Parts: sequence; C-alpha cells; structure tokens
Amino acid sequence: MKIEIISIGTEILLGDVVDTNAAYLARNLTELGYDINYMNTVGDNKSRIVNTIQRCLERADILITTGGLGPTTDDITRSAVAESMDCPLYTDDNLVKMIKDYFAERNYELTPNNLRQAQLPRGAEPLINNRGTAPGILLEKEDKVVISLPGVPREMKDIFQNQVFPYLKNLSGETIKSRVLKFFRIGESSLETELEDIFVSQTNPTLALLADRGEVKLRITAKAESQEACEKMISRAEEKIRDRVGKYIYTTDNTNLPELVGEGLTDRGQTIALAESCTGGLIGNRITDIPGSSDYFLGGIIAYSNRIKENILGVKRESLEKYGAVSKQVAREMAVGIRKNYDSDFGLSVTGIAGPGGGTEEKPVGLVYVSVAFPGGINSYQLNLEGNRLKNKWMTSQYALYYTYEVLQE
Amino acid sequence: MKIEIISIGTEILLGDVVDTNAAYLARNLTELGYDINYMNTVGDNKSRIVNTIQRCLERADILITTGGLGPTTDDITRSAVAESMDCPLYTDDNLVKMIKDYFAERNYELTPNNLRQAQLPRGAEPLINNRGTAPGILLEKEDKVVISLPGVPREMKDIFQNQVFPYLKNLSGETIKSRVLKFFRIGESSLETELEDIFVSQTNPTLALLADRGEVKLRITAKAESQEACEKMISRAEEKIRDRVGKYIYTTDNTNLPELVGEGLTDRGQTIALAESCTGGLIGNRITDIPGSSDYFLGGIIAYSNRIKENILGVKRESLEKYGAVSKQVAREMAVGIRKNYDSDFGLSVTGIAGPGGGTEEKPVGLVYVSVAFPGGINSYQLNLEGNRLKNKWMTSQYALYYTYEVLQE
Repeated sequence: MKIEIISIGTEILLGDVVDTNAAYLARNLTELGYDINYMNTVGDNKSRIVNTIQRCLERADILITTGGLGPTTDDITRSAVAESMDCPLYTDDNLVKMIKDYFAERNYELTPNNLRQAQLPRGAEPLINNRGTAPGILLEKEDKVVISLPGVPREMKDIFQNQVFPYLKNLSGETIKSRVLKFFRIGESSLETELEDIFVSQTNPTLALLADRGEVKLRITAKAESQEACEKMISRAEEKIRDRVGKYIYTTDNTNLPELVGEGLTDRGQTIALAESCTGGLIGNRITDIPGSSDYFLGGIIAYSNRIKENILGVKRESLEKYGAVSKQVAREMAVGIRKNYDSDFGLSVTGIAGPGGGTEEKPVGLVYVSVAFPGGINSYQLNLEGNRLKNKWMTSQYALYYTYEVLQE
Repeated sequence: MKIEIISIGTEILLGDVVDTNAAYLARNLTELGYDINYMNTVGDNKSRIVNTIQRCLERADILITTGGLGPTTDDITRSAVAESMDCPLYTDDNLVKMIKDYFAERNYELTPNNLRQAQLPRGAEPLINNRGTAPGILLEKEDKVVISLPGVPREMKDIFQNQVFPYLKNLSGETIKSRVLKFFRIGESSLETELEDIFVSQTNPTLALLADRGEVKLRITAKAESQEACEKMISRAEEKIRDRVGKYIYTTDNTNLPELVGEGLTDRGQTIALAESCTGGLIGNRITDIPGSSDYFLGGIIAYSNRIKENILGVKRESLEKYGAVSKQVAREMAVGIRKNYDSDFGLSVTGIAGPGGGTEEKPVGLVYVSVAFPGGINSYQLNLEGNRLKNKWMTSQYALYYTYEVLQE
C-alpha cells in the first residue's frame, strides 16, 4: 500500500528546523512494507495544506501529517484535515476533560486556545498524547486513511510507536525484512559496476546503494509471507554479492568500525593505545564515542611535533632524520613506542600529511603511514589519499580502525 | 519571487538519510528574500521526478533540485530535467575533459558510467563542482529557471555558495546583507525570552535564531538600497542586542572556537598542548581540523586511565587517591603536567564523566573539570553537563576551547 507524508510548518520552509520527523516515519513505514513515493512539506497556510492533502490522497491510500496540531493560531492542521475530508470539526467532551486534567495536574494556567485541541473531525478517533496536550487524529473514510501527529519529535514518536505502528502493521499484512552489507575500500560507482547485472535483474529482494563517509552500504530488502522466507531470500542475494565483492564487506550488522574494534578487543580481553599524528585525536575521539570504551582503550599520544615523537614515543632521532616523520619506519616506531609506553596489547599509529600545506613532490598531501603493533608482530600500511584535510583525516581513521579490526579477526 | 525545492533520492524516502540539504537551501533562499511555499521529496524514478518538476513550475518561478546527478543508473535527475523542460541531453566536450582530468589526476579508474555526468540539457550552463565529479545544471527557459545540484551536502553547498547564491542574489535585485552573532553559555529559549520584544517589533532587519551544537547563532538580515545602508541597520540592531545579552556573544565573524583559539595563539606566537580524559581526543581533533594548526598545536596526551595520568602526565598518586580522577586538583595537575611535558605555553586539560556509566551520587554523569595553565597562572572550572555521552563530550570541548579563548583575550 502507498503512504505519503506531509510535514506541516513554516519553520521548516524557512530552514529554521531540519525535518527529522519525515525520516523517522519513512524508516518505520518502509520496515512495515509500505511504499513511499513522495514526501511533502507545506507551511502554516490552510488552503495550501488542504490542496496538499487532496493531491496526496489522489496518489496514496494513507496519509500521515506531522505538525500544526498545537494550540496557537498558526496550528491549523485539524481544520485543514476536516475540510479536505469533508468531516466537520466538533468538540470531543472526553478530550476537553483530558486537557483540563493535564493542566490542573501541573498547575498550568488553561488559556482558552488550548481547548481547540479537543476538536476532532467527525468520525475520527483521537490518538492519545502522553507527552503533551495535542492529541493526534486517526480518520478512516471510504478507502482512505489520514493520520495527523504533532510536530514535536518526542510526542510524535511516542504516539507513532504505541498507536500508529501497531495499527499500520495490522493493515499491511505483509512481512518485510532488510539487511545492510557494509563495504570498505571500494567506491560506490565501482561497486555498482561490479554488480550492475544483479542490480538490474533484482526486484524482490531489492538492492539499494548508499555512500556514507568513506564507506558504502548496500541494503537488501525482501518482502514475503514470513520472516523465515525473507531471511532466505536475503541470504541468497547476499551470497551472489559475496561471490563478486565479498572481500570488501566488513560487516552485515549495523555496527561501525570503532564498535567492531571494541568488540574484538573485549572478546580477547585486550587493550589498545594510540599514537596519532595527522589525525590529531580523531581516532581516540571515535573510539571513545562508544560507551564502555574505557574497558579496552587506555589512551594515546597526539604527537604533532617531532620533538614529541622522539621524547615521549621514543622514535629514534636517526629515523626522523633519515626517513622523515612521514615514513613507514617512523610509523612502526610510533606503534611500538605507544604500546610499550602505555603497556597495551595493541599499539596503533598514524603519521601523514593531511594538507592543504606540508606536501612535497616526494611526499604529497594524502601520503599516510599506518602501523599496528600487536602481541604477534607489527603490520604497516601506506595510504595515498586524495581528499581535502578533513576527508584525509577521516579516511586515515577509517583505514587505521579497519586494519586493527583485520588483525583482531585473525 | 517564488522558489520550490525538490529533494531527489530513494534513500530519503526510505528514511536512510535525513534531508539536511533542504533546510540549508531554505535558510539561504529566505535570506535572499525568496518565498518558499512547498518543499518536495521524490525517489529515483524518472516519471515521478518529471511530474514533480512540472507541478512545481506551475506554482513557482524557480526550482532547485538536489540529488540524482551521480554516475550510477539510479541517478536520473539530468534526464528528468531535460524531459520536463523539453531540452534534450547532449554530451558537453568540456565536461568530458574535466571529468577525465579529475580521474587522471587521482589515478582513479574511469568507468564509462562516469561520463554520463558530462551530459547537459540543451541550453543549460554547467555549475562546476570543485569537490566531486558531478557538475550541477543551471537551465533558464522562458520565464522559468531550474537549478540542479548534487545531493552530497559538501558538494551541494560549495556549488550553491559560489555559483548559485550570487546568481540568485543578482536575480532578486535586492541588496541583502546579514551578520551572525554567535552566543555561548546561553540557551536558545532563554535568549528568545531576553529578546522577545525586539524579535516581535523587528521587521527589517529581521532576526533569526538557530541553535547549533551547544551554541546559538542569531542572524541579523537587512534589506536596503545599498551595502552601506544595510551595514548601518545591522549595526543598530546589534547594539540593541548587545545591551541585553552582549556578554554571551563570543564572535560576529563566521569563525568557530578552534579557529579563534588558533588565531589568538598565532597572534601571540604561542603554543598549546592538551591533556584529554573524557573527551578522548575530540579537542585535538577539532584543533587539527584547522589548516596550519601545526604552527601552534604541539599535540597532547589522551589519558583515559589513571596509570597514564600518573606516569606520563605526572599527576600525583595522592591526588588521584584523595580527590579522585575527576576533580579540580587532578585537572590542575594534568594541565601543569602537559604544559611541562610538551614544553608548551598553554596546557589545557579536561577530566570528567561522559556517561552513560561511571557516575555516582557524589560525582554524577556530566561532572567535568577543565583547567587552563598559561604563562600567567592556572584557571580551573567545574561543569555540570546534562546530556548523553556524545553531547557531554562535545560540550566539554566547547567549554575547554572557550575558556582558553577567554584567557587569550586578556
């Protein structure tokens, strides 16, 4: 069945607010097996809202609106829904009582405009709002359904999860499941070229590619009569993809590299410490974004100057002089040095030229060395990155975490 | 003049991506004096894109699309624009050359699908993309204008700022100027309450508040016959605002705290080093996002464990035992220790409990100490933050940089 979303609010059209509600709804509706062909945004203007509702209902079976249900005069979704569906508003006595109780319990002053929230289009059911005063609306008429939710995200989500999701799940009767394969070290367009025929021939499950900060996600989505049938279809599609490009897939759970490194270290009961040069703290920041990382992350040294590399990490002066700070030798000595200094199981180091300055013909911007020292040895890697400063820092952190993860997999 | 925005991409309809592009464009278009009545989202489906473009052009003079310009087969904005406007696609030789050069310079393999990006609707101008391969499109036909931009935010913004903004500014014929005041240590709603009467009475210049990762921006936008007249109006409005809440304004340039700290250190010819505990590298990462930061940033220690605080930073064991790692005393010793260890002019330290675990009744999640050691002394600060882990890390970095900036201002 087809659903459309209308986000209502002049603040969205002015760019004062990023509309996260639409994405939240879309994700949930997709999971329930509904198709969304269009999303729409309109301001607090009654005739434009009415026009938009009517146009959407020509294309879709179900319509969800967010916003415009509050007590102020620019909140006009309620009357626009009533007009579009030709179901005049009336005041619901139960809602009047609920709103009065809400204000009394909190010792808030009840201004008359608040009682506008007790109005409902004839034939509609209220969707009770446990986190605010504005109830939502569920209106079925002939073969169409209009659902109106408040615009405040926590109120919208609460009503959606508890009342709308079960209603729509029951209505759809379909089972849908998806799995995300995460790729690293291959770009979106190369991946598409490798898989082009599969992409073209595939209808159920469907495949969707999405590039995301130096990695690519491929989502496989299947519709079938049961969870098990979906799982089987997804696994068959995954197998075909793995045959071609399996070596670039690093996870099929919805985890990221810092989490995978954390899990690997936790499983082994081991620890890590960092020696960061060109990333300046980014790797430590990403590792410590994960709750509980203090169990395996001891810390690190941000060694932006040669003096620090030498004095604190114990990199040999002759290595710095002979090979330069951005070299495989120095990366190795940094990894070994931090491992010793922090008494950790893993020592991870990066040294490179993030740009825009600092590059030479011999050592251009984007040249980076990564080294992973671990109980069984030391691995070293050379990167030749092609981005700007921020992208080079980010990709260095991606590769450094990936190589650590690789060692942890062995 | 009326503008509409169409966001193109199935990933938006699936809820995989929050559409921040539309808000960015809306904010800028509003500032330029354009009216936006509707925003639209459609998937990677040619006939639906064509329908949407045609409907929008019935209502608006100008249309901006984002997304669907890449090399893959689901990127079909280019041909949809060509069809809607009845301007057939042709291959532009200059664009072919640019794309080939882009790939050659980077030693990337040029897959044939990349050359689809060299196609343009007849009569259109390319909008050069300095951050990627997909050029944008500017197509004027009769009294309508269609502008197509890539969906990757940094590419979209780069083209918009440098090519589309000036074009639209010229088209609108008005002179518009704006200035952003950046506030720290006051929330959006408190600021609105303080300035409520000014907000209500003010029509030209207009004022707009925008909360942004722990700080608040207030944009003053004036329309007038000349730049000078705009400037005067803005300065008068700024003065009124400063009278009330001037102490919270930290800059009126479009700079951020890491840049301001960098400028302050550069002006003095001084250096800084960090001792980060709960931020795990975030402060170093933010400082090193600024090109040229190696001139004043020596590096730092990420001291996630007490052992490191003691052995490498020289924090006294008795301080750790008596006051605990999260204490003013330890923050001070960390700042002094890193300053000595790295031989820097400034030593900046943070220690705290980012959460969600690790809090106690006496020392709850969000308790953080910051210390700034500098040639003239040591300042220490206590924070009581109220966010989740990521927000607490971020706000700690904000305060730490802000306090450093304050010392540099003296």
